[in-house]
Amino acid sequence: MNAFSPTARSRVKRLPKRAHYDREAVFAILDAALLCHVGYVIDGQPYVTPTAFWREGDRLYWHGSSASRMLRAQSAGLPVCLTVAHLDGLVLARSGFHHSLNYRSVMAFGTAHKVDDPVEKAAALDAFVDRLYPGRRAEIRPNTAQELKATTVLSMVIEEASAKVRTGPPVDDEEDYALPCWAGVVPIRTIVDPALADPRLAPGVVWPDGLAAYAPGAKFETVLGESAAPTEESYST
Amino acid sequence: MNAFSPTARSRVKRLPKRAHYDREAVFAILDAALLCHVGYVIDGQPYVTPTAFWREGDRLYWHGSSASRMLRAQSAGLPVCLTVAHLDGLVLARSGFHHSLNYRSVMAFGTAHKVDDPVEKAAALDAFVDRLYPGRRAEIRPNTAQELKATTVLSMVIEEASAKVRTGPPVDDEEDYALPCWAGVVPIRTIVDPALADPRLAPGVVWPDGLAAYAPGAKFETVLGESAAPTEESYST
Repeated sequence: MNAFSPTARSRVKRLPKRAHYDREAVFAILDAALLCHVGYVIDGQPYVTPTAFWREGDRLYWHGSSASRMLRAQSAGLPVCLTVAHLDGLVLARSGFHHSLNYRSVMAFGTAHKVDDPVEKAAALDAFVDRLYPGRRAEIRPNTAQELKATTVLSMVIEEASAKVRTGPPVDDEEDYALPCWAGVVPIRTIVDPALADPRLAPGVVWPDGLAAYAPGAKFETVLGESAAPTEESYST
Repeated sequence: MNAFSPTARSRVKRLPKRAHYDREAVFAILDAALLCHVGYVIDGQPYVTPTAFWREGDRLYWHGSSASRMLRAQSAGLPVCLTVAHLDGLVLARSGFHHSLNYRSVMAFGTAHKVDDPVEKAAALDAFVDRLYPGRRAEIRPNTAQELKATTVLSMVIEEASAKVRTGPPVDDEEDYALPCWAGVVPIRTIVDPALADPRLAPGVVWPDGLAAYAPGAKFETVLGESAAPTEESYST
């Protein structure tokens, strides 16, 4: 199965032609992001927490302090909706009604569980560092047992997911195209700026080859795509 | 009262020194964003929907098709958590544990209601266009009654809100500063790219002065800040 099967929960109701349920589309949008927004419910109240996340096959991971209210609530096996959105452009039409945005978004549904096994937990955190910073684990100090204990890693298998994408120019009412009004797309892009070395950098330390993808001006999602380890084997069997 | 009073729902538990509850800090982060993530609950299941939003004083607005499941659910007066997050940089430390992100985020809590009054609804949609595109309403075709009917506008008064901000270089364990390992910040920035005119642009139409802020290379949140109408009067009395 290379597509997520939509149910009432995940089926895109509005503008279904913008919807995608295949893993390739869903994963591409997830992997182009570092931040997601995790939604969960405590005592009937919705919370949406922005957090970094990473993916391995059908499994999504995020992490934080073991003292975090969010992570403690989710540890017990809580339904979550993990959403990622990329704003790609402003779409200026000839009527207010047809103004729009170009975007790529994913809503992924699952049940969050704490990663209890210490080996799996350490491996997940290593995978997160590797995903962002190839080669860096060889340069930094390893995690201590106390640091691992102070860190909670959550994961969920994607039970259902849907992607929604809009691209291209405005779509106006036919009679409006003649209006003497500028229309088109203002693209939006997230880029890497020149790195700022820590004022306390040890003498002689230089920018490492492993971070070469973080070149000034590079599109951030391209950097993420280049550093993300392909793990598609884990679900294609 | 120029601060939101934190309760159990909105008080930042982790790293409270990163927390802010004053309106100035909360509004600055909200106004620097076009997209938010709205969390809500239907039958115990959390949903997080990315959507454009705008602010007037203590009131947040978002909108969409009247056929939208999200908007129909929220119309009845539903508790929501509206979250905004800006990723400002990757923080590379000398240990995995102290790696971090620079960010600005806001969680705003309230109860979503549909804007029923047609005059208020039309005014809200006008304010959204004005917020993004100064002067544009004079150039585009006005909304029809049918378009207004097909559009649902939601709003909520911010009952509580908290902001969380991290800036600056990594904070490492004292003994790790001597490690021969690059450390610092890789800044991330979202910018405007050159506009793409609609292939069906009417003859002789040029890029209007009102969109001058959308200059190629401009920081997107600066553009939003310049176009956002100040409405601080509405709460400072």
